[in-house]
Amino acid sequence: MNLLYTLDLLGTAAFAASGALAGVRRNMDLFGVLVLGLVTATGGGTIRDLLLGDTPPFIFKDETYLYLSLCVSVAVFLFHRNIDRFHHPLLYCDAVGLGTFVVIGTSKAIAFHIGFFGSIMMGVMTATAGGMVRDMLSTHVPLVLQREVYASACLAGAALLYLLHFTPLPGNYASLIAALAVIVLRLLAIRYNWSLPRASHNEHAD
Amino acid sequence: MNLLYTLDLLGTAAFAASGALAGVRRNMDLFGVLVLGLVTATGGGTIRDLLLGDTPPFIFKDETYLYLSLCVSVAVFLFHRNIDRFHHPLLYCDAVGLGTFVVIGTSKAIAFHIGFFGSIMMGVMTATAGGMVRDMLSTHVPLVLQREVYASACLAGAALLYLLHFTPLPGNYASLIAALAVIVLRLLAIRYNWSLPRASHNEHAD
Amino acid sequence: MNLLYTLDLLGTAAFAASGALAGVRRNMDLFGVLVLGLVTATGGGTIRDLLLGDTPPFIFKDETYLYLSLCVSVAVFLFHRNIDRFHHPLLYCDAVGLGTFVVIGTSKAIAFHIGFFGSIMMGVMTATAGGMVRDMLSTHVPLVLQREVYASACLAGAALLYLLHFTPLPGNYASLIAALAVIVLRLLAIRYNWSLPRASHNEHAD
Repeated sequence: MNLLYTLDLLGTAAFAASGALAGVRRNMDLFGVLVLGLVTATGGGTIRDLLLGDTPPFIFKDETYLYLSLCVSVAVFLFHRNIDRFHHPLLYCDAVGLGTFVVIGTSKAIAFHIGFFGSIMMGVMTATAGGMVRDMLSTHVPLVLQREVYASACLAGAALLYLLHFTPLPGNYASLIAALAVIVLRLLAIRYNWSLPRASHNEHAD
Repeated sequence: MNLLYTLDLLGTAAFAASGALAGVRRNMDLFGVLVLGLVTATGGGTIRDLLLGDTPPFIFKDETYLYLSLCVSVAVFLFHRNIDRFHHPLLYCDAVGLGTFVVIGTSKAIAFHIGFFGSIMMGVMTATAGGMVRDMLSTHVPLVLQREVYASACLAGAALLYLLHFTPLPGNYASLIAALAVIVLRLLAIRYNWSLPRASHNEHAD
Repeated sequence: MNLLYTLDLLGTAAFAASGALAGVRRNMDLFGVLVLGLVTATGGGTIRDLLLGDTPPFIFKDETYLYLSLCVSVAVFLFHRNIDRFHHPLLYCDAVGLGTFVVIGTSKAIAFHIGFFGSIMMGVMTATAGGMVRDMLSTHVPLVLQREVYASACLAGAALLYLLHFTPLPGNYASLIAALAVIVLRLLAIRYNWSLPRASHNEHAD
């Protein structure tokens, strides 16, 4: 499915940019920026493949993802001063990446006969685990655990795809619908500043 | 062995509660609380299965663990103000979980023909790695590396089980004895405030 | 190849010492010091084996690595006050470990038919991932992402080995040359205080 592969690469590039930028902001050296770019872009899918027992993971079967992440990270390292200009395009690409990664992860889990909960976990993990490792490597509490409907959009899309899988709808259409659901939810969440409830816990973190 | 499965679920619930509570204390949103609950309850066994090459890990073969962790985490999110009332029951359930997880992890490693050191590592890891990931996700130095005889009780129980494995004692009895050893050691450690020696290093962490 | 195995154990011991020392400095208890020693010495190779699907990882097939790391960590715990005396020998052993780990990781990846980029990643990861987990466990931003030509020496050595693999040079010689390249680069980097460029980002980490 060529469209999905194209969207996948677009998302990979956007995720690599977000990781590399985090490295620049943490004042890391060139190697650190590359590692954060690579991990953010490919970490989620790699952990998914490890859990499914599909080794070596996808990044070693098609090195396009690695070279693309590398090039984007180097570009961010060199031109990070101008990156504000790309703030909006990056947000859109990031949303496209989110939708694509959720669909790829969930579909793969279904193909490996994982159940409902597990398939949704795989979809959400494919889209968010790379960013969580990025935040752990820079000793920040992962953003995705703290704010916005980032993960919820993934949850909704993954659940939708799992259910569509039992309808006579062809797989390509189901994937497209689920990916669009994630992307639209994510963009609406940004626009209207949605957020999930927190437990109203007043003490500071101990 | 039905008793072991029951104890396993009890421990899973207690571990999920401890993870979800950490998420509430770090002021995470609902999704963050769920992730911390799930990771704490199932992370140790998942890492064990990855290391043994037994993929997909147990949580995807029997989704009971996932649903249970989810329900407990949601309950903690909603009713965390009343959780102090359950402080003592939670400590007991946590100790039961510790003993059960050690026994399950060590037994599985022995069944996979892992050696003495490796089997003990697997037992300890099954019981403690979930909590370590919980602490890393909330950017705290893992508690288990710093205080109390938490890990040592696991070490002792795992070593005991490995050795009992060479005696004519039936497996069920060996498991029960080892689990009880962990639980009793853990409860004694809480009661008498035992702790492991530290290197008397006076400089502050750099 | 007996020389490689000897160098491997030497590197393992040096890495275990660096991990255990980090644990002592973070004021961890004995268990924490052991975990940090073990993880630093064996974590990189373990992650490599997981990614290659070669489970259980090498540490469970030859427990020598585990016992060696354990003994070194206990020694550091007991005698850390005298460790300054071994500062220079430790730096040399660490460099030897770096070179050896890169060569072992890259060779294994080539044997598993991983491509150019992936094989280099495996080599670098074998040598550096243990230290990264050590730093994450003690909630520090991994040193290797921030300073010195530590990782670059690994990158150069891994790329060299991959290329030598296509020449008629016997494997043993290629390994030796690549390991020496890493070791010499690393020692030169220490001596002349080389460092990688950073993006000149003036804001503090947010």
